[in-house]
Parts: sequence; structure tokens; C-alpha cells
Amino acid sequence: MDVLATTPDPPYFAVIFSTVRNEQPGDQYDQTSVAMMNLAAQQPGFLGVETAHADIGITVSYWTDEESIAAWKRDADHAFAQYEGRARWYDAYELRVARVERAHSFVRGA
Amino acid sequence: MDVLATTPDPPYFAVIFSTVRNEQPGDQYDQTSVAMMNLAAQQPGFLGVETAHADIGITVSYWTDEESIAAWKRDADHAFAQYEGRARWYDAYELRVARVERAHSFVRGA
Repeated sequence: MDVLATTPDPPYFAVIFSTVRNEQPGDQYDQTSVAMMNLAAQQPGFLGVETAHADIGITVSYWTDEESIAAWKRDADHAFAQYEGRARWYDAYELRVARVERAHSFVRGA
Repeated sequence: MDVLATTPDPPYFAVIFSTVRNEQPGDQYDQTSVAMMNLAAQQPGFLGVETAHADIGITVSYWTDEESIAAWKRDADHAFAQYEGRARWYDAYELRVARVERAHSFVRGA
């Protein structure tokens, strides 16, 4: 992931998922993370995702509406990944659902 | 920064700043970035900040209200840093202002 999400004019919704990892090498975190991003991208209402992991991880996914977010939360494979996250992968996380009111882009030379 | 922001019950506001760096070693980006985080923390209405930089950078700052965000945008030192960002540091960025409607925390063992 080396590009920013291309999102429409607001309003739309953002799910801000901030995480502190519980380091467990070989615990399938990385492959599940990629699988969940690919699965999210197939959901109705998905607009895009941005992710960066350093001392903490931040993944922001963008959605057309709150019902799409609720449906994605209930997806069976995603629900299992959420369970694994709490059981093994994360020492802490914060999940915030927000309504994007304004947005501003900058692209060099554009 | 290795902890998540501690924020109050919603509603409050988030500024999601997603960036693609224009790599220029020694260009004072790192020290300006730290200075801006410290300066933001002194502003009225500031609640917290989370940041992670990998292929892209994501910094999310949290605020009590939109007026506090507008005042921080106008801060003179911050305005100069914004100018430097467009002139030198970033190839692209997206800045989104969002109203946090719901939040959910997980802390292992809590």
C-alpha cells in the first residue's frame, strides 16, 4: 500500500482503527491483515483504505454510509479475524467511526 | 509515540492527515514534525494524536470541536510548516476533517 485512498466529495464515513500489536511471530497476523483488506475492498459501500504500521498501526477505511460499515463488521470471516485480534494479536486497539465533513487534497505539480 | 490517544466519549473531531513523502534527507522534516506535534498538544481543544509512518504516513489528531481545528490551522508556526510541506516534503497528501460518532476500545486484560 503506497498510495492514498481516492475518495469522493464528503460526506462519507471513516473507520479509524489504531492498534498496539502483541508481537507473536508466525501467528498469521500479516496474511490475515492482507486478506481482510482484500475482502473489505469487495464489500458494498467500500471507498478505499490507507494503512501504516510503525510503533503503532493505523488503518483508516472509507465507506459510503454507516450501514455498509455495520455489514462489514458482521461479515463472518471478518468477525473471526476480530476474534483472533482480541485473542492474540493486539494488546490494545481503538476503533472510531467518524463522518468525514471536509477534505482537501494536495498533489505535487497537479 | 507508542501509545494510543486517550479520547473522551464521542462526539469529538478527528483530523486524518495521510501523506506521501518526497524523500529529502536532512531537510528538517523530522524535527518540524515533532515540533508541530508538541505545539498542537498545547492548543485549546486538543485531545490527542496518533501517528504511524511506513510506505505512507498517517497522523490522526483529535479535537473537541471544529473551531479548535480552524484555530490550529491558522497558527503562524503551523502555517509555515504547512507551506514547507507543500513546497518540499510531500508529493501528495489528503487531509480529512471528520466527526467521530462512535468509538470502541480494547485493552488486553482490562
